Amino acid sequence: MKAVVYQGPNKITLQEMPKPSLLEGSDAIVRITKTTICGTDMAILKGGVETVDAGRIIGHEGVGIVESVGSGVRRFKPGDPVIISCITSCGSCENCRRGLPSSCVDGGWILGNTIDGCQAEYVRVPFADNGLYKIPESISEEVALMLSDIVPTGLEVGVMNGDVQFGDVVAVVGAGPVGLAAVLAVQFFSPAEVIVVDIDEHRLDLAKQVGATVTINNKNNDAVAQILELTNGRGVDVAIEAAGHPLTCKVVQEIVGVGGRIANIGVYSQSAELHKESLWVKNITIRMGVVNTTTIPLLIKTIQSGKLDPSRLITHRFPFAEALLAYDIFANAGREQAVKLILNMDKASVIEAKVYQEDELVNLIVQHVMAQAK
Amino acid sequence: MKAVVYQGPNKITLQEMPKPSLLEGSDAIVRITKTTICGTDMAILKGGVETVDAGRIIGHEGVGIVESVGSGVRRFKPGDPVIISCITSCGSCENCRRGLPSSCVDGGWILGNTIDGCQAEYVRVPFADNGLYKIPESISEEVALMLSDIVPTGLEVGVMNGDVQFGDVVAVVGAGPVGLAAVLAVQFFSPAEVIVVDIDEHRLDLAKQVGATVTINNKNNDAVAQILELTNGRGVDVAIEAAGHPLTCKVVQEIVGVGGRIANIGVYSQSAELHKESLWVKNITIRMGVVNTTTIPLLIKTIQSGKLDPSRLITHRFPFAEALLAYDIFANAGREQAVKLILNMDKASVIEAKVYQEDELVNLIVQHVMAQAK
Amino acid sequence: MKAVVYQGPNKITLQEMPKPSLLEGSDAIVRITKTTICGTDMAILKGGVETVDAGRIIGHEGVGIVESVGSGVRRFKPGDPVIISCITSCGSCENCRRGLPSSCVDGGWILGNTIDGCQAEYVRVPFADNGLYKIPESISEEVALMLSDIVPTGLEVGVMNGDVQFGDVVAVVGAGPVGLAAVLAVQFFSPAEVIVVDIDEHRLDLAKQVGATVTINNKNNDAVAQILELTNGRGVDVAIEAAGHPLTCKVVQEIVGVGGRIANIGVYSQSAELHKESLWVKNITIRMGVVNTTTIPLLIKTIQSGKLDPSRLITHRFPFAEALLAYDIFANAGREQAVKLILNMDKASVIEAKVYQEDELVNLIVQHVMAQAK
Amino acid sequence: MKAVVYQGPNKITLQEMPKPSLLEGSDAIVRITKTTICGTDMAILKGGVETVDAGRIIGHEGVGIVESVGSGVRRFKPGDPVIISCITSCGSCENCRRGLPSSCVDGGWILGNTIDGCQAEYVRVPFADNGLYKIPESISEEVALMLSDIVPTGLEVGVMNGDVQFGDVVAVVGAGPVGLAAVLAVQFFSPAEVIVVDIDEHRLDLAKQVGATVTINNKNNDAVAQILELTNGRGVDVAIEAAGHPLTCKVVQEIVGVGGRIANIGVYSQSAELHKESLWVKNITIRMGVVNTTTIPLLIKTIQSGKLDPSRLITHRFPFAEALLAYDIFANAGREQAVKLILNMDKASVIEAKVYQEDELVNLIVQHVMAQAK
Repeated sequence: MKAVVYQGPNKITLQEMPKPSLLEGSDAIVRITKTTICGTDMAILKGGVETVDAGRIIGHEGVGIVESVGSGVRRFKPGDPVIISCITSCGSCENCRRGLPSSCVDGGWILGNTIDGCQAEYVRVPFADNGLYKIPESISEEVALMLSDIVPTGLEVGVMNGDVQFGDVVAVVGAGPVGLAAVLAVQFFSPAEVIVVDIDEHRLDLAKQVGATVTINNKNNDAVAQILELTNGRGVDVAIEAAGHPLTCKVVQEIVGVGGRIANIGVYSQSAELHKESLWVKNITIRMGVVNTTTIPLLIKTIQSGKLDPSRLITHRFPFAEALLAYDIFANAGREQAVKLILNMDKASVIEAKVYQEDELVNLIVQHVMAQAK
Repeated sequence: MKAVVYQGPNKITLQEMPKPSLLEGSDAIVRITKTTICGTDMAILKGGVETVDAGRIIGHEGVGIVESVGSGVRRFKPGDPVIISCITSCGSCENCRRGLPSSCVDGGWILGNTIDGCQAEYVRVPFADNGLYKIPESISEEVALMLSDIVPTGLEVGVMNGDVQFGDVVAVVGAGPVGLAAVLAVQFFSPAEVIVVDIDEHRLDLAKQVGATVTINNKNNDAVAQILELTNGRGVDVAIEAAGHPLTCKVVQEIVGVGGRIANIGVYSQSAELHKESLWVKNITIRMGVVNTTTIPLLIKTIQSGKLDPSRLITHRFPFAEALLAYDIFANAGREQAVKLILNMDKASVIEAKVYQEDELVNLIVQHVMAQAK
Repeated sequence: MKAVVYQGPNKITLQEMPKPSLLEGSDAIVRITKTTICGTDMAILKGGVETVDAGRIIGHEGVGIVESVGSGVRRFKPGDPVIISCITSCGSCENCRRGLPSSCVDGGWILGNTIDGCQAEYVRVPFADNGLYKIPESISEEVALMLSDIVPTGLEVGVMNGDVQFGDVVAVVGAGPVGLAAVLAVQFFSPAEVIVVDIDEHRLDLAKQVGATVTINNKNNDAVAQILELTNGRGVDVAIEAAGHPLTCKVVQEIVGVGGRIANIGVYSQSAELHKESLWVKNITIRMGVVNTTTIPLLIKTIQSGKLDPSRLITHRFPFAEALLAYDIFANAGREQAVKLILNMDKASVIEAKVYQEDELVNLIVQHVMAQAK
Repeated sequence: MKAVVYQGPNKITLQEMPKPSLLEGSDAIVRITKTTICGTDMAILKGGVETVDAGRIIGHEGVGIVESVGSGVRRFKPGDPVIISCITSCGSCENCRRGLPSSCVDGGWILGNTIDGCQAEYVRVPFADNGLYKIPESISEEVALMLSDIVPTGLEVGVMNGDVQFGDVVAVVGAGPVGLAAVLAVQFFSPAEVIVVDIDEHRLDLAKQVGATVTINNKNNDAVAQILELTNGRGVDVAIEAAGHPLTCKVVQEIVGVGGRIANIGVYSQSAELHKESLWVKNITIRMGVVNTTTIPLLIKTIQSGKLDPSRLITHRFPFAEALLAYDIFANAGREQAVKLILNMDKASVIEAKVYQEDELVNLIVQHVMAQAK
């Protein structure tokens, strides 16, 4: 089968790999129909995720059709259309039972990390009863794909960790995919205001479309001043850090008000300065974490009821054969106005494997940009 | 001044009464500009509220202009436009500090009950710093009036006591004023479905307009069966009892699912049968209570942000001089398609006091109905 | 193997039954070393639990040694000493994921109910990874046995459903096994007072020993008056109903104070009167349910730290061969001062099966009582 | 009257000051009978609290007798024995209503900070109805004094902000007064283990006496390694930072486990490094704040029930005339084995004011130490 394989820092290939098979009774094999690229995949590509070895099929988001199941799988059968959760969980370890499957002692985020992942024609999903979710007929595959990771992450790690209450003033600092997902999800909790901060005007436009009530372009570094003015000096009830940059970590600390909550959605690779000297008198809470994806069933119901439309996060679609081009587009997400890119696994699209070199990619992008310009 | 005065069972008068004056340093006198009639006022009129003595000015909802304040009032001054909370609270007794101002040892629901109330040109508001809320310029008086009692009640006693979570299936049984207020308020929590049950088609129509996703006319007593079918036998996550009738108390018990919550909004004058034999295996929670109105500040913000429009509950408007006619219309709310009726206190409307007798009222209603029919 | 078998209303036998074998990959077979009798077993014996068919091995509490495991069992191996939870849970159905394993769609309370149970030499435990807990060396089997059901029930359904906060005044109405377990468990939450009500002086003595600060013998039906006097008319913060009788259901409603919680631990077979007319003004919460046993891991840690000693609930010990005598003692728990009775499964004790008849039992009890009197 | 007055950095005096009088209707004047010195007072003395001007009477803890009350005070009368909360709160501002009186817009921590405080014969207490608590006869003044600040701080900012659950493993890093108060208070929540870390053997001994199950002397900087070993590498559920030092801020981050909470009790004057790169995968919560003292009523009940004895924190007693000596003893708390020092305001003790100079203090301490040595 074809798969996207990490080959060490700054090199991935789309190549032939062996089709996975069932290893444990709780496994399922899923034939992927659509997958997508996450910011974390970019971090892997840059060599920034130490647990990923060369030769690993990457990708932790996907929808598809169950191909086969192990003897212990009770809730799924071949032919079922499913969402694959980015989190693998045994369901019975100490952490799973405490409601923290993201820290499952035999799971957590392992797909496309320590075991082969979803950017492939087939994937083996361990503990399938806990890691798959049936896609109802009323939900499209593209929309379902947004529930593998991005929407639960915005919701759980941003909005729910921020303990957003109706009537709150919320700021989302960073309007990349996960920040926008938080803007989408925060609507469930009816905040009075959703202020979105970024330096990319296109992303701020998109934020408006998915629910921001105020957008602030921080190119002049005056977002803090603007937000304090908007809130009569009170600051915000919830500040969601969705960029992972030391500067945005500082911004959320400066805008949070008395009794406020800071939720950090980022994947952090460095420490930040915590301004206890100004925060302690405000009785604040700071949270950070990995998505548990425990909200997927509720999100399915919410989509069915028409209260959520994550398709608005989708900006690009590619045949899987052009996965590497998609990576490059995503690497230049600002210029390309890219948020979530769909990789379609329909048969026609799975063509010959290609190994792009850096300069080939440049050419491809030039072609792509020119094609779009027409 | 003119005021609506309870004169014993089944008799109220609109008559001249002495204007109230400041009694305590924490008092304010408010000149009422708009008031309204609550279902509880109807219960008083029927003699069903023992704590209300003959001679009492009734009414516990109102907006107006602060006329004067006692020496200890710190947050309001003459001229301030204000919402009057239906709950009076000292702010420092054991129950106030526990977040239960509705059980304030020197307050609670006393306006229009044990002290003179809001259906008058002026009212004395004890502990004014805790019982008044400034009306922002962007909110109309009519909308503000809906925050005295009805919307906080639907929200706190219905929705929040029901612990509604996003993605929940919620049923509101009873689409009178408080049930409709619950339908309005439940939207803040993004339930997947809001099923409303009543036997009045007009109210069910109104429920649809304010957010019901499914309405069921229970005239054939098959609402339970319909709801169980709709939910694949699971029942609902939250069942809000908003009619106060033994039959509706039974309905909510029959439709609540595993882990479900029953919230009772009614003012109850009799016991109900609690079907422990069928409920105990479901791990359910039942709550009942009096509104604390602690959500008024959040509701103000929510209205300002455009997320709530309680004006949709207002069906009738009267000059205060026709307060007794309004009572009669409200007494026939079903026939009159009445939900919330505004009594306007503008000068011109405060004319001679009238004491209606039963048959006069009948005539007036006939005239009113005929006038509307044209 | 020998087992206690329900033979229809009012008849159980201790008889030879086939040893169970693994049916599913997630099963384990456990060799029981100790089991005990629950009040629910008495209800079964009387024919009061419709789901139990004649021929069923009863009992849902047990500790033992893992004998064999299915291919899908990952956390246990033969030889492991284990507690068997009274609740069976798949870990992946909708209810399990919502934290309600007691309503697992393929489990719940099924042991000794719809599948063969623990009052036997061997038992098949479905979903063993979720239904077994390793017994640490520092905890005795007898103490561990108290975690199968009784202590988690007192804790989860009584204390935690009652949302006991430190400084609260708590009343436990009914000092049978589950009421006493609630008294034990409530200590974790440091209430200011724990008032225990019963009509059996011996049980009240025991309540004092396990943490009651006040005991009230309600033989003169004045417990309500006494509690209201003790609390200066305020009533209690939490009232735990642990007798299941309509009279005790009334008591808890009469003693609960403003903002209070009523937790019902009983297994209910009839409805009760809910006094909404007096409760609604108090803003109260009522809960009822089945234990989930999700607290077993925490209880193990709490026992290890010396903060909990459930051995104080154990009053009698029998060899398994005398299981039917134990049933009879338990049936006369008041007279026999019985709370929890241990049935020891050591080889020597598993003698010939016996089928007692009513009058044989009377004789046996007389002998037993006389033997104890010496 | 005599009072301890801040005279600028490193200088305080015990001197004659004018007796305070009622300024507002909500004020009370309290005659202090006992007061004490807080770590924050030491910070003031060193010039570290910018809001404190020279000439200010310091001290925010005290018990005494109500001397007079303003016209608006409803809950207290002259002669009442009272605890003075360190937090002043109006009860009606936005923050008070949100349960954050420590951020009251007209109050918060102002006693002994922006208005004159409790280390004096008399103190004016604003919003007396909210800032005073009656001392029941069964509680001694010394014990009551511990509720002004220290015990509520350990409880609210340490234990409750750490969301300690029964069965948790808790570490308290820093065994000064507030750390020891947290150890006392954490017992209400029945943790499995309470690990206390300090470098002072006497304080660790005291920690053992008030409830620590494990104490670790970190003089060799191996506390982190020891705690990880003790917890089988899992780390702790709750880490309470009670020293305010950058090193202890680092320790709590290194020992917190998956799903853990860090509660910071300190008064911080500098930023700390937040190790997001290692913490984010653990789904952790960090809180910091000022005490609200909303738990005082519950603490009174808990003391009355015998479940809390804060007198164990009291190590020294002085007549008020020797207040400056007490300061010096407290400044050398380690050497002096001092935790909480009582200043007694009995008439005989209020002698001539003294202004100690640095070298006089040294002499006094030498005398004091020698006197104790006999």
